[in-house]
Amino acid sequence: MLYGNAIIGQSGGPTAAINATLSGVIRGAFAAKDVIGTVYGMRNGIEGFLAENLINLTEAFKNEEDLRILEQTPSAALGSCRKKMKSPEADPETYDRLIEIFKKYDIRYFFYIGGNDSMDTVSKLSKFAASHDYDMKVVGVPKTVDNDLMVTDHTPGFGSACKYVATTVKEILRDVSVYTIKAVTIVEIMGRDAGWLTTAAALPKISGGKAPDLIYLPEATFDPEKFINDIVEIQKDHPAVLVAISEGIRFADGRYVGEGMAARKVDAFGHVALSGAGKVLEELVKEKIGCKARSIELNLPQRAAAHIASKTDITESVSVGKHAVECAVNGETGVMMTIDRAEGEEYSVTFGSADISGIANGVKGVPAEYINDEGNGVTEACIRYLAPLIMGEIDTVYEAGMPRHIVL
Amino acid sequence: MLYGNAIIGQSGGPTAAINATLSGVIRGAFAAKDVIGTVYGMRNGIEGFLAENLINLTEAFKNEEDLRILEQTPSAALGSCRKKMKSPEADPETYDRLIEIFKKYDIRYFFYIGGNDSMDTVSKLSKFAASHDYDMKVVGVPKTVDNDLMVTDHTPGFGSACKYVATTVKEILRDVSVYTIKAVTIVEIMGRDAGWLTTAAALPKISGGKAPDLIYLPEATFDPEKFINDIVEIQKDHPAVLVAISEGIRFADGRYVGEGMAARKVDAFGHVALSGAGKVLEELVKEKIGCKARSIELNLPQRAAAHIASKTDITESVSVGKHAVECAVNGETGVMMTIDRAEGEEYSVTFGSADISGIANGVKGVPAEYINDEGNGVTEACIRYLAPLIMGEIDTVYEAGMPRHIVL
Repeated sequence: MLYGNAIIGQSGGPTAAINATLSGVIRGAFAAKDVIGTVYGMRNGIEGFLAENLINLTEAFKNEEDLRILEQTPSAALGSCRKKMKSPEADPETYDRLIEIFKKYDIRYFFYIGGNDSMDTVSKLSKFAASHDYDMKVVGVPKTVDNDLMVTDHTPGFGSACKYVATTVKEILRDVSVYTIKAVTIVEIMGRDAGWLTTAAALPKISGGKAPDLIYLPEATFDPEKFINDIVEIQKDHPAVLVAISEGIRFADGRYVGEGMAARKVDAFGHVALSGAGKVLEELVKEKIGCKARSIELNLPQRAAAHIASKTDITESVSVGKHAVECAVNGETGVMMTIDRAEGEEYSVTFGSADISGIANGVKGVPAEYINDEGNGVTEACIRYLAPLIMGEIDTVYEAGMPRHIVL
Repeated sequence: MLYGNAIIGQSGGPTAAINATLSGVIRGAFAAKDVIGTVYGMRNGIEGFLAENLINLTEAFKNEEDLRILEQTPSAALGSCRKKMKSPEADPETYDRLIEIFKKYDIRYFFYIGGNDSMDTVSKLSKFAASHDYDMKVVGVPKTVDNDLMVTDHTPGFGSACKYVATTVKEILRDVSVYTIKAVTIVEIMGRDAGWLTTAAALPKISGGKAPDLIYLPEATFDPEKFINDIVEIQKDHPAVLVAISEGIRFADGRYVGEGMAARKVDAFGHVALSGAGKVLEELVKEKIGCKARSIELNLPQRAAAHIASKTDITESVSVGKHAVECAVNGETGVMMTIDRAEGEEYSVTFGSADISGIANGVKGVPAEYINDEGNGVTEACIRYLAPLIMGEIDTVYEAGMPRHIVL
């Protein structure tokens, strides 16, 4: 058994569930008090750790209520960073400094909650510690609204973002359907290389029956001519057309639609700025069809809207954090926690771990069988995959009419 | 006592509470069954009425549960229109047609739920009916997220939009605070001529302590130089600056900021398209300060997000609908329902009615005492006015992980 202290960091883009995982790791570490002493947090990820910017979480979370509020607080309570670690050969000073701080605080358990870059940090750190005879268990816990990590069935944070997208698209569908004139509304959803979050726009179909008319993902080529023709056809049936797109959709030649087609914006000095894909398609509709067009970029709220978090997601995010501690205490290192879905009709998951070297820097896109043949919608199989992830609502604690958050 | 049937219409831009008012009118009309026979709805406002596109609401709402779901369904369940009625002198055919349909369906009670243009319709209709010896009670019920109607303390729909804005800004504040680099985030909120909804961005201050650093409303002149200087000063204290603006903020010369300053977008044919105010300020920050900048347009969700509706707003919206029926049955016509706030510390309201001619086409802006001296924030008095309007959460019924809506 390895005795010592633990440290937890958060990295990469925020999600509505990243603090639920933080809470899970804290709960797990408290439960493992026979082997784990003090639980520290690093502010602003590995960047803050290098500056010895730590917080004593054992002190900060003396009561259960605070952990509950942490679980409903969006974004990274410990702060985040976007640091991509170099290899120990390229940057030996940084690694020497890390070992120095590990020793100073007797850190024997290192938990890092993040996306692809964070898993790369876990991979490098675990190898370095092992090769320098510093016994430390390094475990990565995934989070990303992009759902693009390998091996795991889905990522913590994805389900809550899906619930926000599904609910918001359902509400927008109601809003745009009230008038009788022709109009096209384009909802732009996060996802540069993987269209997972955009697929959630299809979910209103299973509650109310109405869903976007067209859905475009980066995994399928975007054909602007077919896009316009499809809209013209749909408007023969109903005037208000709703389109959901990923920010990263591309033309056949590989260019991002968001890099512009017709639309160019010129600033005071003649510099060309890039528009988002939604804006580009809005202009295209105005030009080619001439009807009213509007684009809506869901923007930061889709990853921060903890007030409409999925109970399934939050529960799993806490559990995966707890399991990360169990794995570390059992001696695992250099692994990422995974969520494994059981076969069968009924949704259920177990938690596992996988060697991180096969995961870091890989990207899992939406598979072909989840996209329809025309490349402008998703299949029933995709909806069956998504539907359980948004189930359930958390019992949010409100204060002055707004969800209460914790500040560390 | 005037015996006959009733009709209800919805008009103007949707809100999260306009169906709660519809439910209130239906409940009121059902309760007044001694005088009111069948309750009809007109599809797409007065436009649909003229096409005799009616729905029998007495048939549609046989049970309580459906009314409850209606109250949590955003946007106008009956559809809407943007028709501005001409005067009877300018368009006698339309008024003759109206009277014809009123007689055909024995309509004696006419309820119109909407904003300024809708109240103008109520005013014209009530005068026309009276001057043509057609006994019909015409009552307007206000709704608008803009809160810009005269006489009433606030408008149904405003509180829910405020709760969405306050919650979303609070979540965005968490999101943008995780990194250590300098960044400016600009949140653009609805309000072309009145900044009411933007003032709600200040509410996180009373829950969590952190609020936008700068708030700009159309009621105060926007000075771009002071804006940049203010940001530079704030960034000496903390790197992440959050700015909330109304879409309709203007320069000293009266031009909308959204009409562009530096930013011009040129389409394939060289036409200049307008950017939103947020996008213009984002470009300005990038140019003048050179730090990361992002703009977020809250867009349609701010008026459609019934999933985070204010219980205070929804309860009042139902009540004001019920009271509209009571007023009509008591013989009032040509009036708009009002919400009157009682004096004193404790928030409480009563419902009244006011002659519509003093209301229609007037605009109530945010008063000077709600805006700080520098014109870049709101006062404590403003927050005291707003705070009660977002209190309470509705007990939303979910289906497949999304709020259930009703389709008429």
